[in-house]
Amino acid sequence: MTDTAINRQWLINGNPRGRALALSDFKAHEAAVQPLAAGQVRVRSEYLSFDPSQKGQMENIRGYTSGAEVGNVMSARGIGEVIESRHPGIEVGAKVMGAVDWQEYASLDGATVEVLPDDDLLTANLGPLGGTGLTAYFGLLRIGRPEPGDTIVVSGAAGAVGSMVVQIARILGGRVIGIAGGPEKCAWLVDELGCAAAIDYKSGNIKRRLTELCPGGIDVFFDNVGGEALNAALARIANRARVVICGGISRYSEETLPPGPANYFNIVFRQAIIEGFLLSGYEKEYGVARRRITDWIRAGDIVYREDMQRGFENIPSTLLRLFSGKNFGKQLLQL
Amino acid sequence: MTDTAINRQWLINGNPRGRALALSDFKAHEAAVQPLAAGQVRVRSEYLSFDPSQKGQMENIRGYTSGAEVGNVMSARGIGEVIESRHPGIEVGAKVMGAVDWQEYASLDGATVEVLPDDDLLTANLGPLGGTGLTAYFGLLRIGRPEPGDTIVVSGAAGAVGSMVVQIARILGGRVIGIAGGPEKCAWLVDELGCAAAIDYKSGNIKRRLTELCPGGIDVFFDNVGGEALNAALARIANRARVVICGGISRYSEETLPPGPANYFNIVFRQAIIEGFLLSGYEKEYGVARRRITDWIRAGDIVYREDMQRGFENIPSTLLRLFSGKNFGKQLLQL
Repeated sequence: MTDTAINRQWLINGNPRGRALALSDFKAHEAAVQPLAAGQVRVRSEYLSFDPSQKGQMENIRGYTSGAEVGNVMSARGIGEVIESRHPGIEVGAKVMGAVDWQEYASLDGATVEVLPDDDLLTANLGPLGGTGLTAYFGLLRIGRPEPGDTIVVSGAAGAVGSMVVQIARILGGRVIGIAGGPEKCAWLVDELGCAAAIDYKSGNIKRRLTELCPGGIDVFFDNVGGEALNAALARIANRARVVICGGISRYSEETLPPGPANYFNIVFRQAIIEGFLLSGYEKEYGVARRRITDWIRAGDIVYREDMQRGFENIPSTLLRLFSGKNFGKQLLQL
Repeated sequence: MTDTAINRQWLINGNPRGRALALSDFKAHEAAVQPLAAGQVRVRSEYLSFDPSQKGQMENIRGYTSGAEVGNVMSARGIGEVIESRHPGIEVGAKVMGAVDWQEYASLDGATVEVLPDDDLLTANLGPLGGTGLTAYFGLLRIGRPEPGDTIVVSGAAGAVGSMVVQIARILGGRVIGIAGGPEKCAWLVDELGCAAAIDYKSGNIKRRLTELCPGGIDVFFDNVGGEALNAALARIANRARVVICGGISRYSEETLPPGPANYFNIVFRQAIIEGFLLSGYEKEYGVARRRITDWIRAGDIVYREDMQRGFENIPSTLLRLFSGKNFGKQLLQL
């Protein structure tokens, strides 16, 4: 690759704090490809991963990773092929996963990338075997702590994290109710993922449906959404319930911080817990978790969907899909 | 006592669900004193205990004790003297604590009352040695789990539960910040109870003061109030913080359920816990806790205040004092 080759990029062009994300928050840019330093590999991006937390990163709120300043290349994890290597342990042609960001070519420190088996689970490393799967696994097991027979309710159940939570909860012996938007997603939850029932938040009253479906109360509520789903679930928790706060996508597009769940005080009557979950801190156990999830996928106990968009020019609009509920499955884009 | 003797009572006259408690929710009544059954004792009430949860009981919400129907004698715990006994283990003249309710004479099953030492800590059995002290003790130790050096913030800090939490937290090596209403209560928190600082919610911005006073964040927030105090504290929690929801008196007088804490999602960034606390479940450990609290009181490490009102006719208005923040210390009434 010559030093005059062009690397197309998407730069951050606005901070969406306190408002919905917009296409104008990104700007296309062309940069010269830089020479490789010792220890680096050049990766041609093939797949980008999209996650709601990317908006949070752009907001530069304390607690999220920093560096998401206007003018920088937008951060993203992805998978690509090594086309040049100055790292002794990584060969040209290897498939690697790392912080490739929103650009065609990334120059990455070889120590920061992970070489992947080039098999049929390649893109699963960005989904069920990546951060979303691990978030579901540790969030459910360590914070939700389900017991066989528990009633487990999952919001955003057809999403990347939610669909994994649903299936792991079912494998562990739970009776799982999924909340999702639209009949197609709800049918998938029941027919393919093994939910005992699904609630379509677009067509029904969540609280009334939870009352019907959970006569003994909710033992574990795994929340990816916030807002009405969280508040309705809090009204129906069982004694000693565990409420896992993992995401709050319903909050991300609001102009001002929306009210919290009015029913929070029910945790006193129910002696229950609301706990926030972040994946950090579980790194040493990733290997074990990935092996278990791989086994479940190979055995057919866990299925997953990918929502694969295509084309460099569609990168920003693909991120926006997450905030309108358009994606069905793990949101990816193939370059 | 003759069977024609009169027993003055206060009956429940309204259900205050979703609105402020009013004097008209109670009605004075006169009943004939009933003959004692075998195993019962007749108690002449001397002290009544008042607690915010009494409004909750009147609302008959699932999760609180039931039986608080309109027309019934209002429930209350209290202390009185046994004036007749058909229970072999309890002598006339004994001081006992039990469910005496809002009336002059209670006929109680001897097995349900506790005979108390008639000493200078008699009324403390309704405060620091009773449910309020035990709530503070177990709520702080088991849910708050403070470590020496932790920054511990308490709302309603001058109240019956709050003032005990403050002092136990200080004894355990915490740096304690109290939130209370008015300069008199705040001075008491710092001068007598050993708070490092106090925040007067009536005169200052709670969130700004917490930012100044807790530069390293809040490790334990013990909430007796809800509303603005809870929301402000959630914005300032430290990593792995424990938020104990014990009471929500700011919510009790609202016409409709007020919004929950908008900042709840910060528990994700901080990997924190919000947990509801009820005293039930700790019964087997009451004895140990009471001994420790008694020792602390005798040693002068714990002080307590009683707000002692007087007179049968003032019983309903004394309960209302709790919801306007008028009481300073454990609310009692002497008959």
